[in-house]
Amino acid sequence: MEDKAQIQEAIKIQGEVVRKLKSEKASKDQIDEEVAKLLELKARLGGDDGKHQFVLKTAKGTRDYNPKQMAIREKVFNTIISCFKRHGAETIDTPVFELKETLTGKYGEDSKLIYDLKDQGGELLSLRYDLTVPFARYLAMNKITNIKRYHIAKVYRRDNPAMTRGRYREFYQCDFDIAGQYDAMIPDAECLKIVYEILSQLDLGDFRIKVNDRRILDGMFAVCGVPDDKFRTICSTVDKLDKMPWEDVKKEMVNEKGLSEEAADQIGEYVSMQGGMDLAERLLQDQKMSQSKQACAGLSDIKLLFSYLQLFQVTDKVVFDLSLARGLDYYTGIIYEAVLSQAGVAPVSTEAQNGPPGEESVSVGSVAGGGRYDGLVGMFDPKGRKVPCVGVSIGIERIFSIMEQKAEASAEKVRTTEVQVMVASAQKNLLEERLKLVTELWNAGIKAEVMYKKNPKLLSQLQHCEESGIPLVAILGEQELKDGVVKLRVVATREEVDICRADLIEEVRRRTSDAS
Amino acid sequence: MEDKAQIQEAIKIQGEVVRKLKSEKASKDQIDEEVAKLLELKARLGGDDGKHQFVLKTAKGTRDYNPKQMAIREKVFNTIISCFKRHGAETIDTPVFELKETLTGKYGEDSKLIYDLKDQGGELLSLRYDLTVPFARYLAMNKITNIKRYHIAKVYRRDNPAMTRGRYREFYQCDFDIAGQYDAMIPDAECLKIVYEILSQLDLGDFRIKVNDRRILDGMFAVCGVPDDKFRTICSTVDKLDKMPWEDVKKEMVNEKGLSEEAADQIGEYVSMQGGMDLAERLLQDQKMSQSKQACAGLSDIKLLFSYLQLFQVTDKVVFDLSLARGLDYYTGIIYEAVLSQAGVAPVSTEAQNGPPGEESVSVGSVAGGGRYDGLVGMFDPKGRKVPCVGVSIGIERIFSIMEQKAEASAEKVRTTEVQVMVASAQKNLLEERLKLVTELWNAGIKAEVMYKKNPKLLSQLQHCEESGIPLVAILGEQELKDGVVKLRVVATREEVDICRADLIEEVRRRTSDAS
Repeated sequence: MEDKAQIQEAIKIQGEVVRKLKSEKASKDQIDEEVAKLLELKARLGGDDGKHQFVLKTAKGTRDYNPKQMAIREKVFNTIISCFKRHGAETIDTPVFELKETLTGKYGEDSKLIYDLKDQGGELLSLRYDLTVPFARYLAMNKITNIKRYHIAKVYRRDNPAMTRGRYREFYQCDFDIAGQYDAMIPDAECLKIVYEILSQLDLGDFRIKVNDRRILDGMFAVCGVPDDKFRTICSTVDKLDKMPWEDVKKEMVNEKGLSEEAADQIGEYVSMQGGMDLAERLLQDQKMSQSKQACAGLSDIKLLFSYLQLFQVTDKVVFDLSLARGLDYYTGIIYEAVLSQAGVAPVSTEAQNGPPGEESVSVGSVAGGGRYDGLVGMFDPKGRKVPCVGVSIGIERIFSIMEQKAEASAEKVRTTEVQVMVASAQKNLLEERLKLVTELWNAGIKAEVMYKKNPKLLSQLQHCEESGIPLVAILGEQELKDGVVKLRVVATREEVDICRADLIEEVRRRTSDAS
Repeated sequence: MEDKAQIQEAIKIQGEVVRKLKSEKASKDQIDEEVAKLLELKARLGGDDGKHQFVLKTAKGTRDYNPKQMAIREKVFNTIISCFKRHGAETIDTPVFELKETLTGKYGEDSKLIYDLKDQGGELLSLRYDLTVPFARYLAMNKITNIKRYHIAKVYRRDNPAMTRGRYREFYQCDFDIAGQYDAMIPDAECLKIVYEILSQLDLGDFRIKVNDRRILDGMFAVCGVPDDKFRTICSTVDKLDKMPWEDVKKEMVNEKGLSEEAADQIGEYVSMQGGMDLAERLLQDQKMSQSKQACAGLSDIKLLFSYLQLFQVTDKVVFDLSLARGLDYYTGIIYEAVLSQAGVAPVSTEAQNGPPGEESVSVGSVAGGGRYDGLVGMFDPKGRKVPCVGVSIGIERIFSIMEQKAEASAEKVRTTEVQVMVASAQKNLLEERLKLVTELWNAGIKAEVMYKKNPKLLSQLQHCEESGIPLVAILGEQELKDGVVKLRVVATREEVDICRADLIEEVRRRTSDAS
């Protein structure tokens, strides 16, 4: 047994911590965390009956989805899956955990964010960190050399959650990848076409897709005089250009990473460049850039890519942007990232206490990203056989956040069921008749509900329809039963009409043909 | 560094183990496990280039789903979800892990099968063991007193996997539950109606739904002279009646659990009883049984249940069976379990080495189960407020196994994509024209593919259609382009017809209206 007085003292102190944070208007995440600690202490003290000694919460950085959120999630998934299917993708699934060693050495510094399972005897396991590494493992294990597949599943990162900004420790990834030895840039262009289609159809406002190539970045660093061993670290500094101004990026390069000011300035010139096929052509003639074989290979591919993007009719949203430098080590060719232009969209927040507003309106931007990774599968193949891959990942959590916010702002109510008709009665002792009728409807494939009460009030039956958006009520009474009819009520207009019982199913179908 | 010679010695020994098991025709699971150990040792030794030192496998008891399995899974899920939606259910989702203490004390002995996460600083977490406890936690946390929800998600148990029999460490649960204070047996009857509808629609052959009540079991034990503190353990012995004959069950009761022979014989008489409403009526008059208030309450509810089941038109498959005793502690009222009658269906097996055949044909039987649990939510509520619940869980993994087997046995090929038309050409240098046409089709919502090659052979384009079941090919050539037409080929019949380009989309839609 713990010392009660000690715990009570700890509760007092922790209570002060929470009060202080609240008075300082600290972030919701921070307050939540301290409140959780407080509740945990209180739980250890035990309730009056000593029975309910646990904290009622989900794990840090995770959340439940309520029915309304699920309805929105389903809608978003349907749009995305339809697009993947339209492009002929199959789907696969992999386990939520992998052998720990499968993930080892794939994520660089971020490996510290991997969730490990406890060693309970047997294999050492970790929760998957993304869907790309399990995909590469799947291809190597099954010796698959070409496939077009999508995979929608949750991944796990012990990151600092910022849930109000759509950043969780458990979150969905929504990946589409094309594996196989094909002619240059055709599958790559299709990935961009897919991003274009999905973002257009989700109606998230205007967007841009930035494109660059790992080889162009590396060639640029080489011709600007960056030493070979500093490519990666300079690259990760360039990656910050969407979050900080060039001056700060340059400072980091020169002061922290020890790059010469001259080299930094040359990089600065290149990374400010944006354009289309014309820019790629211009850089192919650029005196410095053209000295790098790598850069030239990348630039020629960018040109080819844009020619395909024209045929796919998506060039209006695609920008060749030399400042784009995605972090992951495994990219070998083209890389891309989609950002919403309306940076004004604020993330969903349930409380006033959020992080600094400036940071948020920036971070909601990126909603899709990907690139070519031709070496990853070879890391898993016993003989190192390579399978070229290109893919895209849709940043679904941010899209959920935006859609939720739109739903909240909109007057239209989000329905969480698809029920077409409620079977009701105004009189008593008609439970049996209601159950008979609802059975007829169910057996005909109609989505129908009935109240689980012997004698519910008509008002509460109608209220349930209003609340959950059920459009029709089939009302039974002694008279209706005698006449062989059902009174069909339209909830929205309160209009009522007697329908011959034999025609009810057709009538419900007719009146709800768009809703079902 | 490990001592190479030591590892080589270990590899030799482990190789012997594997050979021995294979010669003894041991079970596939057992062999797989030992082979995995062997591979692990070999990996530790390292390859020639020292680069590929890991084992290419999924974690024990888990599997990948390939596209064909996913196609079957999608079909099964669609049937089940349609049924849940027809009955007006909403859906929720909860995180894959919960605070460890949320799961503590809910699963009795089975708690040892819970996967814990490694303590990496922060909260102690466990993977969810079922969907019922997270549901109860969700209700209590959000103070929800009534909801009808389904939840389809993976759960985790460190059980001994028997994958050939559809038993995994990671597997889907497919739960439908009704929470709320309602009139007796109405929601309970709807759960049975749902099981009936799903099993009928999945077309798995004949089935029966066994029904009993926790209160009838407890009352029966009391009137047969079982001491109070032996109810649970005797109940778990009764639960084995579907796997062993009565004589063995009796032996366990008497010899292992110390029950008197007389009490055991009395139990034996009751648990052999099966029937419908009539049996409940008879037992209400039974001299011994009627002495137990609990049993009488249960029997009256069974009567009421059957009256509703009649209205729902499902009594032909439902049996009141006094031998049904589901293991879980939290049930408080009615319990049920659905079994397939055609015990002859063997589970899917990819290898000849399986467990004993007798056991298998039994264990494939149960495909759904559930019951009433009125106390679980109260365990989470700080004030112990109860929320009555009744629910059902569909044993989806077994259903997958059966469906996979049926698909393999059937002549019909399982399609893994829904592509309606392939855009092809017989001549060279038409990539641009193919990309233009496929863009037209995609933009019109047609599911279409194009080969990622500049100059693919017509044969390989047609072969791809044959292999993946694409019904139509839109063929472009110089002549077609000149004439403003597309040659539409029906893959099955090889029939070809020129279609005016402007009419192509309508024509593809018309010819694939059932496939899309």
